[in-house]
Amino acid sequence: MATNDGGKEAKKSGGGVTLKTPKGTRDWSGPDMILREEVFQSITDIFKRHGGTPLDTPVFELKEILAGKYGEDQRLVYDLGDQGGEICSLRYDLTVPFARWLAMNNIQQVKRYHIAKVYRRDQPAIARGRYREFHQCDFDIAGVYDPMIPDAETLRIIVEVFEALDLGITIKLNHRKILDGMFAVAGVPAEKTRSISSAVDKLDKMAWPEVKKEMVEEKGLEEAVADRIGEFVRHSGSVPYMVKLLRENEELLSNESVKAGIDDMDLLGKYLEALGATDKISFDMSLARGLDYYTGLIYEVIYQPPKEAEAEGKKKSKKDDAASQVGSIAAGGRYDNLVGMYGKKTIPCVGISFGVDRIFTILKARREKENAGKSRTTDVYVMAFGGKDFDGLLSERMSVARRLWEAGIRAEYSPKVKPKLPQQFKAAEDRDVPLGIILGQDEMAAGQVRLKQLGQTDAQGDDKLGKLVNIDDLAAEVKKMLL
Amino acid sequence: MATNDGGKEAKKSGGGVTLKTPKGTRDWSGPDMILREEVFQSITDIFKRHGGTPLDTPVFELKEILAGKYGEDQRLVYDLGDQGGEICSLRYDLTVPFARWLAMNNIQQVKRYHIAKVYRRDQPAIARGRYREFHQCDFDIAGVYDPMIPDAETLRIIVEVFEALDLGITIKLNHRKILDGMFAVAGVPAEKTRSISSAVDKLDKMAWPEVKKEMVEEKGLEEAVADRIGEFVRHSGSVPYMVKLLRENEELLSNESVKAGIDDMDLLGKYLEALGATDKISFDMSLARGLDYYTGLIYEVIYQPPKEAEAEGKKKSKKDDAASQVGSIAAGGRYDNLVGMYGKKTIPCVGISFGVDRIFTILKARREKENAGKSRTTDVYVMAFGGKDFDGLLSERMSVARRLWEAGIRAEYSPKVKPKLPQQFKAAEDRDVPLGIILGQDEMAAGQVRLKQLGQTDAQGDDKLGKLVNIDDLAAEVKKMLL
Repeated sequence: MATNDGGKEAKKSGGGVTLKTPKGTRDWSGPDMILREEVFQSITDIFKRHGGTPLDTPVFELKEILAGKYGEDQRLVYDLGDQGGEICSLRYDLTVPFARWLAMNNIQQVKRYHIAKVYRRDQPAIARGRYREFHQCDFDIAGVYDPMIPDAETLRIIVEVFEALDLGITIKLNHRKILDGMFAVAGVPAEKTRSISSAVDKLDKMAWPEVKKEMVEEKGLEEAVADRIGEFVRHSGSVPYMVKLLRENEELLSNESVKAGIDDMDLLGKYLEALGATDKISFDMSLARGLDYYTGLIYEVIYQPPKEAEAEGKKKSKKDDAASQVGSIAAGGRYDNLVGMYGKKTIPCVGISFGVDRIFTILKARREKENAGKSRTTDVYVMAFGGKDFDGLLSERMSVARRLWEAGIRAEYSPKVKPKLPQQFKAAEDRDVPLGIILGQDEMAAGQVRLKQLGQTDAQGDDKLGKLVNIDDLAAEVKKMLL
Repeated sequence: MATNDGGKEAKKSGGGVTLKTPKGTRDWSGPDMILREEVFQSITDIFKRHGGTPLDTPVFELKEILAGKYGEDQRLVYDLGDQGGEICSLRYDLTVPFARWLAMNNIQQVKRYHIAKVYRRDQPAIARGRYREFHQCDFDIAGVYDPMIPDAETLRIIVEVFEALDLGITIKLNHRKILDGMFAVAGVPAEKTRSISSAVDKLDKMAWPEVKKEMVEEKGLEEAVADRIGEFVRHSGSVPYMVKLLRENEELLSNESVKAGIDDMDLLGKYLEALGATDKISFDMSLARGLDYYTGLIYEVIYQPPKEAEAEGKKKSKKDDAASQVGSIAAGGRYDNLVGMYGKKTIPCVGISFGVDRIFTILKARREKENAGKSRTTDVYVMAFGGKDFDGLLSERMSVARRLWEAGIRAEYSPKVKPKLPQQFKAAEDRDVPLGIILGQDEMAAGQVRLKQLGQTDAQGDDKLGKLVNIDDLAAEVKKMLL
């Protein structure tokens, strides 16, 4: 049973210690862990295909490296205790360590990926896959490049990742220069740009009247200005459609920032075409993104559950609900000034961060629906069988297992000296092992063993006991049957 | 340049922030990171072959879980700051989180592996691969089994891992029951057993006279008793040899603990024979191991550098020295009572922990000697070439790259709109890319591209420009050439 803070299985141990993981954290094991590894592997394969090289940084950084990077969320940073020496904090994301690494090593150009845990002292929401210790999975392209070429490749990577995971998505795009210029045209005072931008960012969770209310009542914007923003942000569509629409608006076009942004988006549209990455993209004027450091293209990936699931309506289980409420499952953008905060040199960057814990929550719900199957981690179970003076053939089982291991086959045997045959079959069944090897005194003397497909209860005649195989051919025969 | 605390590249950034990683920590990137991933992959493959399932735990635990587990090294535990809520510490090893997980989930039987970072506020020794943040790589078998069966498999795993890594080793074995019984027979008072055991454990770093001095002068042992210990601990040899030797000693054999230990070792010897794991094993009476919680078999793996390296004598570089001074590179044993400290039930366990950072230091020194090669992360570089009104063929390069990515091939192209051909060749060379695809206006019009083996400066005639390939056959052709 999970407690509601994600720190699972609180119970007192014999020694009076509370047996739980800390609030907002969890252990990973069994099918969950195997699914997680599959997800990481799929994503890593794609990163590598694009020339990405892996980076790993310490789990904690000097506290001053993290200082002043996260606005009011800075309070969510975990600090290490002061035990003498340097003052450190757990990393809050993978972007700041990346920027620190670039500046420290004076790296001018790189495509790096990084999959690791990050830490936020936030309120956990376990059902929606929100933990205090969670994974980020980032791909960033750093360096001076011709405009929009790396940006387009990043979007292509997003498309490939969700195709590999077989998840339906929409990628919302916008451009900070267009957004900021649009605010200027609408009449937002320069000093209010970021705070109004934050309000717009809430449009995916709140209706326009509420957002407008926040702008006018909380942030002191004139109502007419808010209404003009409301008019602009309701537009969305394909990149070419939106570029055309924006270019028809002479007032917007008179703003240099908007104009530069539109030129970028026009170029991006062409590159996305060449990269075959236009399908799932929506240029959406209401996308703003929270973080301050974005300077150009911004994007957010929204999960689109399959239509059937939607149609089920009330029949949806709680798990499905949780899975479809995960919100954005990947996000990123261009941040050209962050590295310059550490180094003397500015290094333009564009990147994407995949919310793998949320992705995992969706995939797990789907997998549980599709099959309640056990996870297979062993290929062959080596058993022994004999009559009255049966000695268990333990050395023989060991030496057969050794042959299999040497051939790279995943093999196990009972850890008992004289196991009973039904026990051995049950152990194999519990592990969902597909093949059994059965040793008998007489067959061993003839240099043979029986090889049997497990889980076939209706097997007849010879196959009931498995087929006889010479020990020297065993590994090859097993490999053939595992194909 | 590394600073001597392992916190690399201290320099002040523009913002006045010190650009370094915390003391005793490091970033992993480039060839180091790729080698590290290879090592983890090799080891993981072997763990899986033996039916191991992965476990991952939070990087921090409740402080009380770690309390009282590490004796006087407890002071090396990293605490998190008290920011309200639970008091936590970074994990110090992977064994305590494993025991906590077993007890919390009431797991009776499992083979689990865990590769992760652990944290110790110790003095770093970077050249010898000793950091404050470092990796452990553990395989443990928990559960009630017939004697020595899991112990033997654990030793078999050690043999497989170092064969896979192609590292020469000796595995030293001993048994706590033999060791403790031997101390009793020699006349060590029961309350001094653990402290005398700790002194014996230093025999791999100190000569006998020094160890004896510690026993007599610091720990108040009678000199005659120390001399008897000195007599016992100088024996080592194969398991059958030592079992025979010990069974000839009637005084030792009269001790019940020694007798039980010898029976275990006798059984182990037979199992190791069946598992083909006897070669590298030395039953060594001087092995004691520091940790208190071992209850049966204990072992330590010592790196044996190749003979040629030893023969070179004075010619050895500093790096080689560092690599051969790493000490033990894996260690473990049986600990039957640790889980009982958390749960109500005692679960016997046996395990091995690989010191992967030390292993990495050795492999890196070897790799640097063998080849100073760049690490290859890209298979194909897609280039364009043209005359005066060459437009760079960027969309075409993108769409060729897209074909390659879809076929799972690692491909890159220049991030410039109109890159020069020598620049493109240089970029490919810098990345050690084996294949180039060259696009030209005329060839593209005919649906063809040129495919060229790179790095062959002496190529003649047709191969100088590469061979013409139809775009539709390109991915298949590239795969063929990459084999």
